[in-house]
Amino acid sequence: MTSTGEPLLPRVVWLVLFDGFEELDLFGPVEVFGLSPKRFRLRFIAQSAGIVTAAHGAKVLADCGRDDAPPPDIVLVPGGAGSRVLAHDESFLNWLGGWASEAPVVASVCTGSALLAAAGLLDGYRATSNSRAFGWATGFGPKTQWAPGARWVADGNRWTSAGVSAGIDMTLALAAALCGPATAEEIASRMEYDWAAR
Amino acid sequence: MTSTGEPLLPRVVWLVLFDGFEELDLFGPVEVFGLSPKRFRLRFIAQSAGIVTAAHGAKVLADCGRDDAPPPDIVLVPGGAGSRVLAHDESFLNWLGGWASEAPVVASVCTGSALLAAAGLLDGYRATSNSRAFGWATGFGPKTQWAPGARWVADGNRWTSAGVSAGIDMTLALAAALCGPATAEEIASRMEYDWAAR
Repeated sequence: MTSTGEPLLPRVVWLVLFDGFEELDLFGPVEVFGLSPKRFRLRFIAQSAGIVTAAHGAKVLADCGRDDAPPPDIVLVPGGAGSRVLAHDESFLNWLGGWASEAPVVASVCTGSALLAAAGLLDGYRATSNSRAFGWATGFGPKTQWAPGARWVADGNRWTSAGVSAGIDMTLALAAALCGPATAEEIASRMEYDWAAR
Repeated sequence: MTSTGEPLLPRVVWLVLFDGFEELDLFGPVEVFGLSPKRFRLRFIAQSAGIVTAAHGAKVLADCGRDDAPPPDIVLVPGGAGSRVLAHDESFLNWLGGWASEAPVVASVCTGSALLAAAGLLDGYRATSNSRAFGWATGFGPKTQWAPGARWVADGNRWTSAGVSAGIDMTLALAAALCGPATAEEIASRMEYDWAAR
């Protein structure tokens, strides 16, 4: 319940799927959000509703296509080999830049920050990316203040992390920012996860 | 290439899906194996081929059903809320116990060890499970030497881990055992993961 006595509505997290997304970039954050179902509800969006094939072959169902998506609340974009293609896909970048620009929270993991940057969503913000792909990713964000070596960066409502497992740490910090540190600590405990960089 | 000059064939990892499996229990290990595609190939098996709904709502495609499965190489069983049901499902347990009993490697994450135990696959072995569900899980393995507090346990060809994120550490250790520590270190580095309990 809120302080006004109204029931607490879960926030909706939009997870952006594409062929070649890195499995743990997505499912680390999914686990963090998913362990607090009263606070967060998950939606999986792709170019069209249906099966998407991740970088290591897992096939995951998108329950919503781009054209059917309402204005989003929390947006999270993973990285992975597929981001190398999408970073040059004007149709995708125009959609992402328009759809996510007014979202209350815009987040990425790994080379997902190259997609945010290429869509103009990191202009004027501090951000980070996968350390092994840092030179490539940062080339898409000339107006971004890139932070090499950071495990994750929060600047205003833009949240970006380094590679793969760093998305877990960032999402725990995001959960702490949105719901308080006790909620994030409880999630980390249920994951038996030694939360880094808090 | 092997020392005899033959090409190195990837080992096949069978990931056992069921409704209510915990996302990170599965996708942590998927990421570890997936980052060494020359060494490991992934298959997703469920009661029947098709969509399985995980604990937090992700829908994942099983590419093989139980009746079509060849004798397995590496078997990995995740935990999650769905394991509470399956641990009493005689049909599933009989299938798992028969299918996996001769596999070269049998592994579980979190409460997946309750399923291995209930299927008789941990009789006489040391093993561990989710620390929060330890009492429940260990009730299924009266012939198992349970190791409370262990992040993961390897005993012969049986590999079991504590909850959720611990599956990443166990799978890195398994990759080290199968392929050498340099391979596991390279995978951990690519994940930007601070590998625990090595």
